[in-house]
Amino acid sequence: MVPTSRITAVYRVAATASTVDARAQALAVEQSVEMPLEAISDARVLSEVVGRVEGIDESGAGQFLVRLGLATETTGHEAGQLMNMLFGNASILDDVALVDLDLPEDLRRSFAGPGHGVDGIRARLGVPRRALTASALKPQGLPPDGLGDLAARMVEGGLDLIKDDHGLADQTSAPFAARVGAVAARLEPMGALDRDLPSLSGNLDQLRAQLRIAADHGVRGALVAPMVVGLPSFHTLVREHPDVIFMAHPALAGVSRIAPPVLLGSLYRLCGADATVFPHHGGRFGYCPETCEALAHAARRTWPPLAGCLPVPAGGMSLERVEDMLTSYGPDVMLLIGGALLVAGDDLVREASGFRHRVEQVTERLVGREA
Amino acid sequence: MVPTSRITAVYRVAATASTVDARAQALAVEQSVEMPLEAISDARVLSEVVGRVEGIDESGAGQFLVRLGLATETTGHEAGQLMNMLFGNASILDDVALVDLDLPEDLRRSFAGPGHGVDGIRARLGVPRRALTASALKPQGLPPDGLGDLAARMVEGGLDLIKDDHGLADQTSAPFAARVGAVAARLEPMGALDRDLPSLSGNLDQLRAQLRIAADHGVRGALVAPMVVGLPSFHTLVREHPDVIFMAHPALAGVSRIAPPVLLGSLYRLCGADATVFPHHGGRFGYCPETCEALAHAARRTWPPLAGCLPVPAGGMSLERVEDMLTSYGPDVMLLIGGALLVAGDDLVREASGFRHRVEQVTERLVGREA
Repeated sequence: MVPTSRITAVYRVAATASTVDARAQALAVEQSVEMPLEAISDARVLSEVVGRVEGIDESGAGQFLVRLGLATETTGHEAGQLMNMLFGNASILDDVALVDLDLPEDLRRSFAGPGHGVDGIRARLGVPRRALTASALKPQGLPPDGLGDLAARMVEGGLDLIKDDHGLADQTSAPFAARVGAVAARLEPMGALDRDLPSLSGNLDQLRAQLRIAADHGVRGALVAPMVVGLPSFHTLVREHPDVIFMAHPALAGVSRIAPPVLLGSLYRLCGADATVFPHHGGRFGYCPETCEALAHAARRTWPPLAGCLPVPAGGMSLERVEDMLTSYGPDVMLLIGGALLVAGDDLVREASGFRHRVEQVTERLVGREA
Repeated sequence: MVPTSRITAVYRVAATASTVDARAQALAVEQSVEMPLEAISDARVLSEVVGRVEGIDESGAGQFLVRLGLATETTGHEAGQLMNMLFGNASILDDVALVDLDLPEDLRRSFAGPGHGVDGIRARLGVPRRALTASALKPQGLPPDGLGDLAARMVEGGLDLIKDDHGLADQTSAPFAARVGAVAARLEPMGALDRDLPSLSGNLDQLRAQLRIAADHGVRGALVAPMVVGLPSFHTLVREHPDVIFMAHPALAGVSRIAPPVLLGSLYRLCGADATVFPHHGGRFGYCPETCEALAHAARRTWPPLAGCLPVPAGGMSLERVEDMLTSYGPDVMLLIGGALLVAGDDLVREASGFRHRVEQVTERLVGREA
């Protein structure tokens, strides 16, 4: 009999040297059969289904890293159930965090990951080498024409992608169809429809309907917050729309209980994010430089057969941070600056253009240095 | 002009007396327009859309409670977007927790909440007064017949509801259709189909298909983990299936970043959970007695026009805890004991029956005392 493939999930747990073995074993049970093993008589369940403790390492200060092998078959190869098996009940334990993850190739293959990824985004935008730029349409509450006007000025300034703020949904002030229509009407004559990433929201039917509306306007990109719509909806949407470039937004993804590199890097990529937005250190959010670096690595590393996912550091960035960010991430990155551009008001085109030029300059200098 | 209705959301933030005003204002911006206010020229956006700081109270030890008023219109009256506005970006801030919530009646009315709630569950099960009992079918990996056999013995023991373990999805060992068929085949001759709560998983199409399969077998209840499938899918499912009793499972709901009474109590109820499972204190999970009490209160309190949601304390409970739990929660509760019953093995019927009788006894004694 072929043994089942196993997912490797690493958890940080609070314990002492004398309690950690029992703690690890309890976690292996919690994240699989969730019942006393002595009550299980089925031999196959005991050998193939129950989670296994594969390693325990002390990580200092009453913390241990527990490595579990979780049977792939328990996921049913479905995104929600994968999350459930990785961190469903563990999320309710207040001293457990999911800090690392490796998935067997059969699972990666069945999930399939990004349809475009780093290379596909570069190809569509016609930007083979330099770092990419993006900004955000906001605030929520602005009528469609106002958003269309902002988008046109950002494109005029030379930005590569214009995403909706993740707060734009299907509100009365700018319903999805009206908003996408207004933005597309401005970008179409500029030959810039492929730069538009409208933000999707709602249930799977609504998400599909929104992508149909976007397609009717010639728009082939979208922003989705996978934890807001649910991983199953996100993954389904990606698989059903091979032509669309998907950027993932970290809203509702929480901090620290699932390590950001695992959730926003590996898991969002696994489910098909072509690009993943995350808060760069030193902005409004709490990620440290090491977390940002690990996240970018998880998104871009070689992980067959999945295409690389483009890291999009953001969250209160400004032009002054461009050099620092490109030095950290190298050119396979998209820089997203929102509010700091919008503050320019009437000078938005000039400010956007300055952003684009700064990225060109710095990339050239860095790549020159590398050569 | 009618002013927009506002959601009241209370966050615990780390700050000092000299920084908390700025911190609170920044959070109000983060959870609404997410951009510098000086870059907003639209007067309506400034007055009607931007989040408002409505109160700040010190809560000790460098912690403050910040009360925000968030415009209802920003939610588009949609479940995912409601979560996004309540805690989307805030979830990435490592020192912010959403601890309390009040929703305006127009929002409660449009979400509509439980289709059955406490009274509907009692009516369907024919149990007008005493506390209710439940157990869980597990482990995952068991074939359908084994699960069907367990269900029959639990019903024979007199339990009111038999839910699938939340780890049962659509796995090869017991695919949804086969599993529900096997359980229904055993419960139907016992007149107990209404006691079955199969666990649903997958995207919205799959969830709907699973409810169709259940309905074909005469099953009118379901277990769903709203954070696993996504709140939009859960809410849609509830609205589309008025005949089905929905029990919510806390998997992936995390701990402490959104206070359990807010998420598992108020928000799951808002989206339509008729019953909500949560870890009772003293079991395998970390909720304290006050959290459990507040959660049950949020689920059952008067909150027009929403039906009450039945609290289902669980998570490593045993018969010895019955008296304690009923004393805490009163009789409008469903006690869920899983593993501790399954350990009985061949004596499962006797153990289940003992559970049921214990609940009857204690309820009678408590209600007698009250009278």
